[in-house]
Amino acid sequence: MKNQKKSEPNQYTIEGRNPVIEAFRAGKTIDKLYILDGCQDGPVASIRREAKKYDTIVRYVAKERLDQLSETGKHQGVIAFAAAYQYAEVADILEKAAEKNEPPFIIILDNIEDPHNLGAIIRTANLVGAHGVIVPKNRAALLTATVARTSAGALNYTPVAKVTNLTQTITDLKKQGLWFVCADMQGTTMYDINLIGPIGLVIGSEGNGISRLVKENCDYTAAIPMRGDIDSLNASVAAGVLAYEILRQRIKLIQG
Amino acid sequence: MKNQKKSEPNQYTIEGRNPVIEAFRAGKTIDKLYILDGCQDGPVASIRREAKKYDTIVRYVAKERLDQLSETGKHQGVIAFAAAYQYAEVADILEKAAEKNEPPFIIILDNIEDPHNLGAIIRTANLVGAHGVIVPKNRAALLTATVARTSAGALNYTPVAKVTNLTQTITDLKKQGLWFVCADMQGTTMYDINLIGPIGLVIGSEGNGISRLVKENCDYTAAIPMRGDIDSLNASVAAGVLAYEILRQRIKLIQG
Repeated sequence: MKNQKKSEPNQYTIEGRNPVIEAFRAGKTIDKLYILDGCQDGPVASIRREAKKYDTIVRYVAKERLDQLSETGKHQGVIAFAAAYQYAEVADILEKAAEKNEPPFIIILDNIEDPHNLGAIIRTANLVGAHGVIVPKNRAALLTATVARTSAGALNYTPVAKVTNLTQTITDLKKQGLWFVCADMQGTTMYDINLIGPIGLVIGSEGNGISRLVKENCDYTAAIPMRGDIDSLNASVAAGVLAYEILRQRIKLIQG
Repeated sequence: MKNQKKSEPNQYTIEGRNPVIEAFRAGKTIDKLYILDGCQDGPVASIRREAKKYDTIVRYVAKERLDQLSETGKHQGVIAFAAAYQYAEVADILEKAAEKNEPPFIIILDNIEDPHNLGAIIRTANLVGAHGVIVPKNRAALLTATVARTSAGALNYTPVAKVTNLTQTITDLKKQGLWFVCADMQGTTMYDINLIGPIGLVIGSEGNGISRLVKENCDYTAAIPMRGDIDSLNASVAAGVLAYEILRQRIKLIQG
């Protein structure tokens, strides 16, 4: 029964101890919780306490059952079924920035299809203080258990918006004062670009980079310095290095 | 026959078009090359030209045969068998720095076991201009086809040394003038540490961080600023962000 349908269309699974604890703490609605029968250690006890607090249905099952339910193969004895992840609206992202009284900082993913890269970038977005992530509707990787797990809980905090037309969204956001910088080897070295202020950082796919139309609509093209023999960084590493250069310039500005 | 032994102990497979082209260009000895029968496109034609130049044995085979030989499941119609990857010595890494007339820059991985993270970090090491990577012998992830593939060819250029005792290696390298900085959330913000000069950057595992003894032997503890709700970045993203801060400070020093 390896290919049985594992979650309802309006549900998704959260697998592993930390992701499940994170989900409870972030206030996600957990519909049902499966725990490995006989598992008594500290993290599992914390999960049981959280479940009790929220009246979550808990089922104690055998390892075989968990393996069957698991999408990632890394459940660590705990699988939660949560209400389906809701995409945010672009307006929610801007609102989050306004609430924090910060200039908007959005990461836009053009063509990132690998769920591990998507998850790692949402994780980075959260930690670098970005207010949200925007993905194109037609090519977006789904927000699966793998994405949730790779995001290490960030999917609970960082809004991800799905848009029909990335170029149109960029144009709209420009009217609201955002500048757009895209990552490309042919660009200006990132240290030489002023990345302060309301900004959208556009990251392309590993294979194809950023699509022509999206690139043409960006204000700057930023390059990560390369001192090696090969062509390019992993997409989530490149996103991390660029996003942190933006944070560095913001911190420097505040420190004067 | 999914579990048949796929390569001799002194061989490893390189899978996918770019990795195979990279291996030829880096001068690796390719013992044998399998190409999908009927495959005629540009990249495959380039590979055939390289194979001809080096008198490599080429076999044209059906997709089923390639799938059987593949370790990564992502062969794109091309699998090469290369002479086994040779670990370098720490001395080779120092020599590489001397050849380039640069202060040594080494990335030390304490406990990184995930082959995707290992490959991504070797890729970053190459591009950031590090002279090599050091891993501990007992816990090192093997340099498999997955590592080679994730490194995007960097494994052909960037030496990886395997050492018995990481603490001892750090002590030895300190005598040669290197400073060691380890990544840890409790450290000083990385922008406030002088990362110029001969340096070893120590990265711990996602789960357990850096082992106590190794940490005690480091001169500095550097923290990546965190502005979010969750705990930590993906290990290869963290390595990338820190390694690029070292490069940034070096570039700034040269530019004055």
